[in-house]
Amino acid sequence: MRIAVYPGSFDPVTNGHLDIIKRSSRLFDKVIVAVLHNASKTPLFTVEEKMDLLSQVTSDIPNVEIDSFSGLLADYVMENKISSIVKGLRAVSDFEYELQMALMNRKLNPDVETIFMMTSGEYSYLSSSIVKEVFKFNGCIKGLVPDEVIDAMKKKVSL
Amino acid sequence: MRIAVYPGSFDPVTNGHLDIIKRSSRLFDKVIVAVLHNASKTPLFTVEEKMDLLSQVTSDIPNVEIDSFSGLLADYVMENKISSIVKGLRAVSDFEYELQMALMNRKLNPDVETIFMMTSGEYSYLSSSIVKEVFKFNGCIKGLVPDEVIDAMKKKVSL
Amino acid sequence: MRIAVYPGSFDPVTNGHLDIIKRSSRLFDKVIVAVLHNASKTPLFTVEEKMDLLSQVTSDIPNVEIDSFSGLLADYVMENKISSIVKGLRAVSDFEYELQMALMNRKLNPDVETIFMMTSGEYSYLSSSIVKEVFKFNGCIKGLVPDEVIDAMKKKVSL
Amino acid sequence: MRIAVYPGSFDPVTNGHLDIIKRSSRLFDKVIVAVLHNASKTPLFTVEEKMDLLSQVTSDIPNVEIDSFSGLLADYVMENKISSIVKGLRAVSDFEYELQMALMNRKLNPDVETIFMMTSGEYSYLSSSIVKEVFKFNGCIKGLVPDEVIDAMKKKVSL
Amino acid sequence: MRIAVYPGSFDPVTNGHLDIIKRSSRLFDKVIVAVLHNASKTPLFTVEEKMDLLSQVTSDIPNVEIDSFSGLLADYVMENKISSIVKGLRAVSDFEYELQMALMNRKLNPDVETIFMMTSGEYSYLSSSIVKEVFKFNGCIKGLVPDEVIDAMKKKVSL
Amino acid sequence: MRIAVYPGSFDPVTNGHLDIIKRSSRLFDKVIVAVLHNASKTPLFTVEEKMDLLSQVTSDIPNVEIDSFSGLLADYVMENKISSIVKGLRAVSDFEYELQMALMNRKLNPDVETIFMMTSGEYSYLSSSIVKEVFKFNGCIKGLVPDEVIDAMKKKVSL
Repeated sequence: MRIAVYPGSFDPVTNGHLDIIKRSSRLFDKVIVAVLHNASKTPLFTVEEKMDLLSQVTSDIPNVEIDSFSGLLADYVMENKISSIVKGLRAVSDFEYELQMALMNRKLNPDVETIFMMTSGEYSYLSSSIVKEVFKFNGCIKGLVPDEVIDAMKKKVSL
Repeated sequence: MRIAVYPGSFDPVTNGHLDIIKRSSRLFDKVIVAVLHNASKTPLFTVEEKMDLLSQVTSDIPNVEIDSFSGLLADYVMENKISSIVKGLRAVSDFEYELQMALMNRKLNPDVETIFMMTSGEYSYLSSSIVKEVFKFNGCIKGLVPDEVIDAMKKKVSL
Repeated sequence: MRIAVYPGSFDPVTNGHLDIIKRSSRLFDKVIVAVLHNASKTPLFTVEEKMDLLSQVTSDIPNVEIDSFSGLLADYVMENKISSIVKGLRAVSDFEYELQMALMNRKLNPDVETIFMMTSGEYSYLSSSIVKEVFKFNGCIKGLVPDEVIDAMKKKVSL
Repeated sequence: MRIAVYPGSFDPVTNGHLDIIKRSSRLFDKVIVAVLHNASKTPLFTVEEKMDLLSQVTSDIPNVEIDSFSGLLADYVMENKISSIVKGLRAVSDFEYELQMALMNRKLNPDVETIFMMTSGEYSYLSSSIVKEVFKFNGCIKGLVPDEVIDAMKKKVSL
Repeated sequence: MRIAVYPGSFDPVTNGHLDIIKRSSRLFDKVIVAVLHNASKTPLFTVEEKMDLLSQVTSDIPNVEIDSFSGLLADYVMENKISSIVKGLRAVSDFEYELQMALMNRKLNPDVETIFMMTSGEYSYLSSSIVKEVFKFNGCIKGLVPDEVIDAMKKKVSL
Repeated sequence: MRIAVYPGSFDPVTNGHLDIIKRSSRLFDKVIVAVLHNASKTPLFTVEEKMDLLSQVTSDIPNVEIDSFSGLLADYVMENKISSIVKGLRAVSDFEYELQMALMNRKLNPDVETIFMMTSGEYSYLSSSIVKEVFKFNGCIKGLVPDEVIDAMKKKVSL
């Protein structure tokens, strides 16, 4: 069985992420969407909330699983018999950072392969942080994130 | 009447900014130089001081106005009947970020156009932060910023 | 009156070109779409055919004119009292070449300004040469070029 | 069964190509290495010679097949029930061209996915044309291409 | 006598840094490796510890000296009769930042020259911060930094 | 004695080339400007004419020599006891090609070092081909190439 991991912060998951999840799910027997525990940042959503939102928006894709991890991705990959790391590429600046990460992950674990998929043109300007920035000033984020995420963001703010 | 906005932090305004202001003022009936209120940073100058410096160094260009804004640029544009956003491009890294912003602003407001002007070769290495860095260690910033800005920076430090 | 020129080969005009023409026509009193006579290439369409196609697809934009030129753009600009050169940017590789051209044009004629507009995300992969390549092998180019252009390309091939 | 295609000119196949072939063969049930018939270029090897060399150097990888194609890759993909196109990325300039191609191929055939793999650091400076250039002036190409290719290149020259 | 400076944070020195030090030592009569005092960051090693590690790993290169500096590099260069600044380039993003710095340093001191050397392909993914990240989660950093640095990092952690 | 080579086509030498020659002559005991014999192109000037022009415009720099070569640069370097190859960098696209070349040259000859110098901001848009293009249409090239080169280009055209 070929298992891939799609790692990220997903704070929150955008339609660009969802596009990569859907397309990668056709290439592998199983795709694990893995939320990174990142102690050094102050995210909008907790890891549990992020996993819950990811479960909701991927509920119609049978071979997608949601998980979380901390530490090195190379270790997570080894423990879960994962053969591929999936990353989305939007721009040249992504490209260089991800190339560096891919080469480091191959050094740490030569059996794992990083594969890159191009983000659809319509999502090339999308990032979780730009979504949060627009939302903070009451800009419309309809079409940028799944509707479930808009609801969750509104609840967060009203707390 | 065609109105453009040239938004930025201007902390402080450099000769590179001034070059873009002068050149864009020939393309539009009015150019509004809009200082962004940015709560999350600790600038050298207050918004009022930045606006005052901008007024001084653009006093000889009749169709330039100085203003400030907070929140989304797309909202500011709509409220002020602005048809174009002017941005200066220096390098590839600018290019990708600005492309992302231009596409997001078009999504939020399809009637506004972002236009880019190339920074003159002689100013391609100039940024407000590099000016502050050089000044901090008593390096010469003559020719990098207008003389009024050098005076204002010296006063700041002597306080 | 503010006049801009949008120069190019237009062999053939694509929907990406048309997007830039429409958007720039809102920024200027008049936009001249200028077809370059390029002796060293073997184009699909003649300059006259290109101009005819451009006239057809821009017939609903009153302030657009179609023209052709040979020699230096800087000379054409001076002779036609043009204040701005409009260029579309798609990618980093465009960016560097166009920056070089913009700086050279400013050297040759300091009064003319080159402004850049970002190509819409949906057209970022479009170029005249890729359209011709796809068409040559009977691939579908619907949506990539105006319908008038598809008809003209079919006629060319049947000759 | 998941089938991928790795298309290219392979004039000649380099160790960088071979690295991508080996690594992609672990991700898919079958990888078809497809040599492009390119009428407009004057290659060193014929398509048959290229296919023969590819067969020799991949003989130890059971799920690799060698084929050739002409026309649109999107058509070849459809006729051969291929689900993925594999491309190697070496540098930023590759990235932009390949992104354009990937988006065009998705437009022509939404069911096919282009995935990118990073070329190993040690092969990042390798290309078929640089190998031919070095060989032409009697430079050592040992380690850049498989030994079978060196032999074949020597035979070509001695003809 | 031609003296060059190779400035940096070296927190810690990697095998990529060491590669540049060795190669630049062949081009100049003396190479000063200069550790930057950077008040605004919280480094792993103190400036003294960094200098000590650099001394250990360069002990076999007679024309290398270790020093530290604060303030402007352009001033340090002038005070030490240095004719060249050596920088390593790994990627496009390095390139633009370093170009900006090189142009600013030439403005501040027209007699000093910045020269760039390409980092070996095998070290192109190496940076001090990625080494610290991998080490933090007990990943293997053997081969990425000199062995003396691994020992020093282990001691730091055990404190 | 430290000898460097600055290789190129120099068809014709521009002020950008001359800037690199002057600056590199301060770093090395001798700089050889080496004109490449390139059989596959149709240059404006012959190799002899290029060498003659280079001699004229560098006559005031005592440690510069003019030469020509064909074949592999790595071979020329070895035969002439050269320790460094000097290249000028203008832009990101230069950077990637030159990185590829530098890594290949190190593979062919591990003892030779390629060093890069940044082209001055004012020459960043300059290339031999853009100079020829502007000259062809009677545009002013004063300030872009040495005056000796303008004279030689005028003579060429009048033949």
